[in-house]
This record gives sequence, structure tokens and C-alpha cells, in this order.
Amino acid sequence: MASTEERIQAIEDRDEIRELTARYCHAVASADVAGIVDLFCEDGSFCMGERTTKGKSALEKFYTGISAQPPIPFIQNHVIDELGKEEARARCSVEIRMVQDGKSVTTAGWYDDSYRRVDGNWKFNERRFHVFHMVPLSKGWA
Amino acid sequence: MASTEERIQAIEDRDEIRELTARYCHAVASADVAGIVDLFCEDGSFCMGERTTKGKSALEKFYTGISAQPPIPFIQNHVIDELGKEEARARCSVEIRMVQDGKSVTTAGWYDDSYRRVDGNWKFNERRFHVFHMVPLSKGWA
Amino acid sequence: MASTEERIQAIEDRDEIRELTARYCHAVASADVAGIVDLFCEDGSFCMGERTTKGKSALEKFYTGISAQPPIPFIQNHVIDELGKEEARARCSVEIRMVQDGKSVTTAGWYDDSYRRVDGNWKFNERRFHVFHMVPLSKGWA
Repeated sequence: MASTEERIQAIEDRDEIRELTARYCHAVASADVAGIVDLFCEDGSFCMGERTTKGKSALEKFYTGISAQPPIPFIQNHVIDELGKEEARARCSVEIRMVQDGKSVTTAGWYDDSYRRVDGNWKFNERRFHVFHMVPLSKGWA
Repeated sequence: MASTEERIQAIEDRDEIRELTARYCHAVASADVAGIVDLFCEDGSFCMGERTTKGKSALEKFYTGISAQPPIPFIQNHVIDELGKEEARARCSVEIRMVQDGKSVTTAGWYDDSYRRVDGNWKFNERRFHVFHMVPLSKGWA
Repeated sequence: MASTEERIQAIEDRDEIRELTARYCHAVASADVAGIVDLFCEDGSFCMGERTTKGKSALEKFYTGISAQPPIPFIQNHVIDELGKEEARARCSVEIRMVQDGKSVTTAGWYDDSYRRVDGNWKFNERRFHVFHMVPLSKGWA
């Protein structure tokens, strides 16, 4: 049976974790590369398909690459499946508005996230991005 | 005046209810029919217009019907209007990406939800789905 | 170090603030002008570009103007940057489905919000709306 202190801490942790993913969206949309990278652990990683980008310096390079035309992500449907004292796991959905080759691209997908508490703050340990579709708006997802 | 215990419980309940609707989205998008049905009470129902689908076996049949091309729902704007010890009511908005007759369909609407606590976990008692529009992406909602 | 009471209060405040923005969406989408205005402080304001609409009677006029074809907003990515006892500040993203001149318009943007507690309830002090794009769906955002 959790104590009052433990229950309050868990609620605060969940809130902070959800805000972490929200901060990510604002930082990406405003091409704030330093701000994005700061949301990751020192050895944190972003994974998409076979590609893994690991560590702050690799992440900085990766996110610099998208900052010319920053995607606009909207994160929703957050489910925190595991919450420990120092580690957590969650799933969340995402819709992203992108521009690629001069075309409007619309994306739907979800993240498998793991988080770690670093010096008191929750950070991304691993963001694994799964894509339902990433298609020109003019074409659609059918 | 609510006690500390009651206040913490209410916060946890609200969190769990919001996660219930998020779990629903993930289960629908991945066509996890058993997972969807498990989020409903034994006599829970999904209502859309004149049509009510009530009870786990009817729900299983209903959600099996959508699983060939599962819709991708995004639930937002959750307002929990009533929260009791065993029952709750809320409204939330939803955007859904669907495929119908080989066409990309975009939907906006909202749910009037009622929930019940069953063996300690919040479940859908009734999901009433209201549609603003459900239109081909190529046509739009105007 | 915050007390148990202070921590619970802060969590409740954050929840109520997020629900305030959700209530706003439902009120706008259903063209409930009185309901929208009631979410603002007596001298609250809505700002967009150079235009500031300040005070309940100006807000009522402003929101009446959009109620013929109400926009459907979806608010996400809420980050509460500052939370005091009576004042708070936050950022949130928004996607809006609109109809303008008979055309489907899709909008992405974000709000810089400030809130004040009035008679025990959080209200909008200032909503400053920033637009990434507000474009015909048929044209896209590229």
C-alpha cells in the first residue's frame, strides 16, 4: 500500500512526464535544437525504423537537420504503463504537420517512450517513433 | 471539505479516467478488439446516432467490424464534469483518421462518456459519439 | 520544501487549468458565447497579432462574430511554466478546423496563456494566439 507521500510523488511524476512530451513538441516546432536535446538523457536515443540516434551530440546533429522546416507535432493519448522511482515507460500518439520537398505532409504515429530521472528531472531515455503513415496531404492515407 | 485522502483519490481517479480514453485510442488504432472490449463494463455501451451497441459480446462484434482498416483516433479536450466514488461523467473531443471505400476520411467529433469503477478500475459505462463531420479528406468539412 | 497540502493544491490547480483550456474548446465548437466569455476574467483579453479584445463585453462581441460557423479547436501539448497561488502561465498547441468563405481551413498554432484565480476558479487572464499557418485544407501549409 503506497503512502501519501508516494502517491503524491507518483502523481507529480506523471504530470512531469506528460509535460516532457509537450515540451518536446514546442521545442521541435520552434526548431529549438538545444532545447530538444536538453530533454534527453546524456546517452538518450531517438529511434525510427532501423535508425537509432544516440547521445546528445548525435541528437543535436539529427535535430539540426530538421530545423530548416521544423515539423509541428501534437502529442496525445498518453498512457504511462510503468512508473518507477527512476524509470518509466509510456505510449503516446502523435500527429505531425511537416513540409517535405515543398509539399504539405501529414503524419500519424505513436511513440514508445522510456524515461529516466536525471538530477531530479524526467528525461527521454529512448523515444521509439512508429509511423502509421507519413503522406502528402493532397494524397491522404488511404 | 474533502480530506487529504479523498483529494488524492480524486486526482488519481481523474488521471486513470483520462488514461482510459487514451488506452481506447491505442487499442482501436491497433485493432486490438479484446483490448477495446476490456475497457468497457460488462453491460457497457457504445452509442452513435440511433444505434446503441450494448454488452461485451455485441461490442466485440462491433469492433471486429472496424478492425480490417482500423480508425486512428486522437482524444483531446477532456473535461471531467462529474466524479463520484463509483461513477463519473466527462466530455472529450476526438479527431479520427479513417479509410472508407478506399478513401481517406477525416472525422471530428466528441464523446459524452460515463464511467463506472469495476473491481477497482475505471471502465466505460457508455460512450456516446457525436459527429461534427466525417468527410473525405479531399472534400473537407465546409 | 512544499507541504503536502501545497503539493496537492498545485496538482489540483494544474488539472483545473488544463480543463479550463478544454472547456474553452467545447464552448467554442458549440458556439456557446456566454460559456466562452465566462472562462475569462472580468478584464480578460484575447490577443491575435496586433488585435487585442479586452473585457467581457468586447469578448462577447468578438466570439459572437465567430459563432455562425464555429471553429473546432483541439488543444494539446500543455506546459504550465509558472504556477503561483493566484496566477499562472502556460503554453499549449492548437489545431483548429474552420470554415471561411465556404472553404475548409486548417490551422495550427499555439497559445501563450496567463490565468488568474477568481473566486476560487481559474480563468483566462490573457490568451495570446500565435499562428503557424491558417490555410485552405485543399492548399496545405507548404
